[in-house]
Amino acid sequence: MASIFTKIISGEIPSYKVHENEKFFAFLDISPLKAGHTLVVPKVEIDYIFDLPNDLLNEILVFSKEVARKIEAVIECERIGVSVIGLEVPHAHVHLIPMNSVSDMNFAKPKLELDSDYMADLAEKIRQA
Amino acid sequence: MASIFTKIISGEIPSYKVHENEKFFAFLDISPLKAGHTLVVPKVEIDYIFDLPNDLLNEILVFSKEVARKIEAVIECERIGVSVIGLEVPHAHVHLIPMNSVSDMNFAKPKLELDSDYMADLAEKIRQA
Repeated sequence: MASIFTKIISGEIPSYKVHENEKFFAFLDISPLKAGHTLVVPKVEIDYIFDLPNDLLNEILVFSKEVARKIEAVIECERIGVSVIGLEVPHAHVHLIPMNSVSDMNFAKPKLELDSDYMADLAEKIRQA
Repeated sequence: MASIFTKIISGEIPSYKVHENEKFFAFLDISPLKAGHTLVVPKVEIDYIFDLPNDLLNEILVFSKEVARKIEAVIECERIGVSVIGLEVPHAHVHLIPMNSVSDMNFAKPKLELDSDYMADLAEKIRQA
């Protein structure tokens, strides 16, 4: 069965898309740790990051850097943190999180609930950045 | 002034090295979240991960994958988590953390204190894996 991320990439499930190329897709996390928290996923559905073929593993951080620069242009932060956990959705994904302190990267914290109009506007700003 | 990681790479400061190539160096974190918690650093001293030139950004996860496979061969875990925070030492570094639950990636938790003989033995096992 297609993962939720494959359905997001195909458009079957809507998302707040911020960037895309032929191999990767980036969209706002709907349960963010911080506003601007973005997920980068390879279009190919592979569960574990370290099972990605080397050509994708090669390019995923370069694509993530493009996304990080866009987020930084819109969200005030010290830098963009990177995290790959992957115990929930079996489709590799890189979390990009605008960060001012290490606690911004604590996944045990309650997630934010942001208004859909705000999320749509934020995604548009990041996409255009 | 050289960062603590540059001094570790040069051997001026001793470390529990687990892997190395011409561009990257990997060693056990001496304040680990879990036994086997390893840091991967580029030999060139650049603070922010997304300021690395694309050739290094390209290769850092492929090198990290080699290290992750070695850690997995020695430490029982679900998978290896990846995190880049970088608010403390101004020399880009990737945390590789043997993980069974998301709480294993919580940097706010107290760090483990592991005996130096244990750390030396663990590094040797991972290096040989």
